[in-house]
Amino acid sequence: MIIVMEHNATKEQLQRVTDFIANKGMKSYIHQGDLLNVVAVIGDEINLNAESIAALEGVANVKKIQEPYKLVSRVAHPEDTVIEFSNGVKVGGLEKPVLMVGPCSVEKDYEGLLKVAKAAKEMGCQFLRGGAFKPRTSPYDFQGLEEKGLQYLAKAGRETGLLVVSEVMDTMDISLLCQYVDVLQVGARNMQNFKLLKALGRIKKPVMIKRGPAATIKELLLAAEYVVSNGNPNVILCERGVKGFDSQFSRNVLDIAAVPIIRKISHLPIIVDPSHGTGKRYLIEPMGKAALVAGAHGLMYEIHHDPDNAMCDGAQSLNLDQFKEVTKSLNKLIGRIDYDNKNNK
Amino acid sequence: MIIVMEHNATKEQLQRVTDFIANKGMKSYIHQGDLLNVVAVIGDEINLNAESIAALEGVANVKKIQEPYKLVSRVAHPEDTVIEFSNGVKVGGLEKPVLMVGPCSVEKDYEGLLKVAKAAKEMGCQFLRGGAFKPRTSPYDFQGLEEKGLQYLAKAGRETGLLVVSEVMDTMDISLLCQYVDVLQVGARNMQNFKLLKALGRIKKPVMIKRGPAATIKELLLAAEYVVSNGNPNVILCERGVKGFDSQFSRNVLDIAAVPIIRKISHLPIIVDPSHGTGKRYLIEPMGKAALVAGAHGLMYEIHHDPDNAMCDGAQSLNLDQFKEVTKSLNKLIGRIDYDNKNNK
Amino acid sequence: MIIVMEHNATKEQLQRVTDFIANKGMKSYIHQGDLLNVVAVIGDEINLNAESIAALEGVANVKKIQEPYKLVSRVAHPEDTVIEFSNGVKVGGLEKPVLMVGPCSVEKDYEGLLKVAKAAKEMGCQFLRGGAFKPRTSPYDFQGLEEKGLQYLAKAGRETGLLVVSEVMDTMDISLLCQYVDVLQVGARNMQNFKLLKALGRIKKPVMIKRGPAATIKELLLAAEYVVSNGNPNVILCERGVKGFDSQFSRNVLDIAAVPIIRKISHLPIIVDPSHGTGKRYLIEPMGKAALVAGAHGLMYEIHHDPDNAMCDGAQSLNLDQFKEVTKSLNKLIGRIDYDNKNNK
Amino acid sequence: MIIVMEHNATKEQLQRVTDFIANKGMKSYIHQGDLLNVVAVIGDEINLNAESIAALEGVANVKKIQEPYKLVSRVAHPEDTVIEFSNGVKVGGLEKPVLMVGPCSVEKDYEGLLKVAKAAKEMGCQFLRGGAFKPRTSPYDFQGLEEKGLQYLAKAGRETGLLVVSEVMDTMDISLLCQYVDVLQVGARNMQNFKLLKALGRIKKPVMIKRGPAATIKELLLAAEYVVSNGNPNVILCERGVKGFDSQFSRNVLDIAAVPIIRKISHLPIIVDPSHGTGKRYLIEPMGKAALVAGAHGLMYEIHHDPDNAMCDGAQSLNLDQFKEVTKSLNKLIGRIDYDNKNNK
Repeated sequence: MIIVMEHNATKEQLQRVTDFIANKGMKSYIHQGDLLNVVAVIGDEINLNAESIAALEGVANVKKIQEPYKLVSRVAHPEDTVIEFSNGVKVGGLEKPVLMVGPCSVEKDYEGLLKVAKAAKEMGCQFLRGGAFKPRTSPYDFQGLEEKGLQYLAKAGRETGLLVVSEVMDTMDISLLCQYVDVLQVGARNMQNFKLLKALGRIKKPVMIKRGPAATIKELLLAAEYVVSNGNPNVILCERGVKGFDSQFSRNVLDIAAVPIIRKISHLPIIVDPSHGTGKRYLIEPMGKAALVAGAHGLMYEIHHDPDNAMCDGAQSLNLDQFKEVTKSLNKLIGRIDYDNKNNK
Repeated sequence: MIIVMEHNATKEQLQRVTDFIANKGMKSYIHQGDLLNVVAVIGDEINLNAESIAALEGVANVKKIQEPYKLVSRVAHPEDTVIEFSNGVKVGGLEKPVLMVGPCSVEKDYEGLLKVAKAAKEMGCQFLRGGAFKPRTSPYDFQGLEEKGLQYLAKAGRETGLLVVSEVMDTMDISLLCQYVDVLQVGARNMQNFKLLKALGRIKKPVMIKRGPAATIKELLLAAEYVVSNGNPNVILCERGVKGFDSQFSRNVLDIAAVPIIRKISHLPIIVDPSHGTGKRYLIEPMGKAALVAGAHGLMYEIHHDPDNAMCDGAQSLNLDQFKEVTKSLNKLIGRIDYDNKNNK
Repeated sequence: MIIVMEHNATKEQLQRVTDFIANKGMKSYIHQGDLLNVVAVIGDEINLNAESIAALEGVANVKKIQEPYKLVSRVAHPEDTVIEFSNGVKVGGLEKPVLMVGPCSVEKDYEGLLKVAKAAKEMGCQFLRGGAFKPRTSPYDFQGLEEKGLQYLAKAGRETGLLVVSEVMDTMDISLLCQYVDVLQVGARNMQNFKLLKALGRIKKPVMIKRGPAATIKELLLAAEYVVSNGNPNVILCERGVKGFDSQFSRNVLDIAAVPIIRKISHLPIIVDPSHGTGKRYLIEPMGKAALVAGAHGLMYEIHHDPDNAMCDGAQSLNLDQFKEVTKSLNKLIGRIDYDNKNNK
Repeated sequence: MIIVMEHNATKEQLQRVTDFIANKGMKSYIHQGDLLNVVAVIGDEINLNAESIAALEGVANVKKIQEPYKLVSRVAHPEDTVIEFSNGVKVGGLEKPVLMVGPCSVEKDYEGLLKVAKAAKEMGCQFLRGGAFKPRTSPYDFQGLEEKGLQYLAKAGRETGLLVVSEVMDTMDISLLCQYVDVLQVGARNMQNFKLLKALGRIKKPVMIKRGPAATIKELLLAAEYVVSNGNPNVILCERGVKGFDSQFSRNVLDIAAVPIIRKISHLPIIVDPSHGTGKRYLIEPMGKAALVAGAHGLMYEIHHDPDNAMCDGAQSLNLDQFKEVTKSLNKLIGRIDYDNKNNK
């Protein structure tokens, strides 16, 4: 930790800072500059409260040296986390990138969902996604089928051999979700619902955390740290676009650079959702490819057997024909990446 | 609703759009432009799914005319909502702006909290705030006293005659909070926790919703609409800063303009939190004053009897002496605003 | 300067960093942490290229301690800069806040401009503003009257005794502007036109720099540093809103906190433009008041004798009746602030 | 154009709006909704001033249907613009993506620049880039070699057969640049320097416009429209990252989606600069690949023969060995894209 003093801080204020650090059992060194004094704290700063120091009189600002996350960082855990499912599918590291597809929300028409699942299986996808509890910005929009939706998903998963992903919105629903799904998704708007994250740390099923629309990469990693530090190491991260100043052509800014950045600083798998990231059907293919060549461990995108009559997000969903065409193109790229990865192993 | 067709949309695609609208029992008119065709839908569009229409082939974009919120809008409810508490304190409309103060989190030292409450009462504040369940970005930070914290708050409130505000983080905790507090606060990170918002619509106690760090004003109003449409009209909004690109000198960008904007389009009370909005102690006074002259119905800011040893947010908390000085200055302004309001009533 | 090494940096890489610093004639100290090594550089770092150091192998990141601006900082120049004009008007420090008003662009109708100027004088404003060279986002919008516009402005200024402000868009136009105006304004879109800033450093007339829509406070101060370091100390800063993610109700986010922040770290005057900052006529009064109580040295806002037929920005311009009403309310507040300032001097 | 009236607008206000439109020689239709009235204007709205209408009493907001750019839009010009250089190199459409590389700034050491140029040629790059006039945020940073830098660039270009790109910062320098370079670059900070854009419309050499750090895609296209509407159709666009709220790991957010979006709505070539877009050397390769698969017509990135001693942007420059390795990987991908494009022609 580096503590920069105000240019007009007094000797007494400086003394108070070094005393404060000494009282916490840590060492500090003072560097006297021409204009400013700087105090360097040596040692593991994770338990030293930067806010308390910043609150001391005469302190201009406090710069942390160490990152506040530990378990999800490559510093402490250099090998990639690879999550393996009961059917042998693996996510992370140098494994073949996976595809997670399905409708925004599970609807009453089970046959429609089954059509989607069969097309997904046919195209080599590994996961069926679908919302049973829907977080909708407006209270007047469709709110989801709840348990019935989970049953449908699980059934379509069993019939096709696909793994199933669905969102959990409340701590009370965790055990219900665990009965039906293979991956519990934390939605972007719940990324900092810390009660939920802690509770998910106490289960064993993999958790996929979507980056919040205004969350920094550090905040995303800290959300994962909540789950891991509470006992569940099986976390997948998901980039799905952040809020930007230009939403005329794309709902969010899909931050592709988050993929190589997270692969450098963390060992967790990171996938990308180009459907929510852009809100436009025609951007799924180019942005999906961009994510894959940048190193994404998988993609999640929306398909619907009848997008014109979808209960939500129709404009960003592919219909089955579009889905097959886009996925064919993505699979070609995935094949090449997998080939290169195997040669790099 | 206005539907703009692609410049190369076919006649059949246009027909399909107007059929779709007719099937929903609504009327539409086609305006043929030189370059583009535009379809105007007439009538109450709140139940017409814009996404389904945007998903139709040949549609370039869909512009909604009506706002998606109803109950919180001045269009349907022109008079200000004024929330009245059992002790006669009123929030909203042309009532005297209120002050909500207290520590970021309630800590073990009850005497410290009581000192804060007494100082608050002495300076004419109406509410004591304090976190019992703390949403912390890092799992290694202090997580709050939970029920014991609520007991302390309620006790300090009773001893001083202050109303009590505290954050609810989970639907499971709502009934617990209701036993101890006068206002249940929804934190910025939970602003779109829709399960929580719905559940808060089923209680009668006032709910204060903090604007999320990347939430638009429309999204904030829709969050309030969740509570109101589920049966609880007692909602207070709170601006507390949004994420910006420059966090060197201020943690967030305090969006003061949200105050006059919300007062124009909604009847709900809107208060401002300059502590979280800036993260700097020295900015509480100027930004608090700015919020008040812009029309805020109240301010919420952080004070601590011993900020150097606070468990959270010390750097943005005022100590008791600073608190008295700042509040004296704010009270002078509040007095003038109250005088002007009374003459305008 | 603090140099944080990668956690797996080698001894040789560390040596290379300290050698690099020694070669520049500066001293450094190495702090060995449990996880990371940190190198502290002591002395005036303004001439040490952080980028070169960040480029060395094994360096994780470089944190500058000193701010990169010198002349505009309070560290080196603690007293407020107060700019005094030939007619005795003063801007900055604890002087009475000033008002700069006028149309977005000067138009062909001189009588209209004169009406505006007379109303401005009558209401106690000190400056007449108007664009002669208009930076318009679209090439199809009105581009300004150029020299004729400057002549009109100067004439209206002379007839009413108002000082005149207009925007300079190109180094080639500086000498022309100097013949007609009292303050040369650098527009937000030109804030980092460094050729222009340098050239403005070589004149003596005051320069007003508007903050760019994505400029940090540091970048704004560095733009001012360009002018001051080239010889012209007469710089006024202007906050006019930054780009945000929500432009539904307000074109930009007016960053009121920039006022008290800049007053703390710099000695230069800072004014606020609530017209461009919001784009809405009804927000000029509340946001103007907010800026004043937060410490702004003045306001700039747009008025037009016939906004319905304005060539630009009609929607954010006040007509003459609205102008008088708003300005009456602002003057009341200015009177109180001036009274308080005089008692604080 | 769609004009939405306030919910409480009067009949007279509505009449005034339709009269205003009729006076401009255009037709309008009124749609009476349950809550709001809407006026639709039919015809080419490009010359109708939305601001004047928005300024009328009773108008809630104005939604433009037509985009404000014409010449750069695919609506009016469906075929791709392909810019061909004297040596046969082509940029745009389905041509093979190009590589533009070189140092951030041209420095005194000509031999160093030549080394870079030779390596670029060897790796199949088409353009040598380098700054002679440097726009630096701080006045204390290196400001460029000016004409000598241009001479060096041109000489290195001739010796290797590379085309040359350099930035123009001021209208006064255009003719000088034209003597030495093949493409005149407009820097991100000058993207809305409209005097410069207009002047560049009067030359014939290709102009490359970099997207400003807070510029929307519409604003970028309007900047290009300035050049094209003044007579120069040879414009290349360049995405180089926009300001975001998280700059801890990447200086800007590289908006890869801008590539497929711009290719859909405009016929102009669009390239990507992953060096400035991220500020990190290790991100050039993954982000360069992402840009290429998303459809970029080329990449621009920084290399330096001795990054540790570069005068600017060392941390984001590749040294010659890194350059060769990265470019080998990019060339492999370019080869595949070129193969696919040829089969799609």
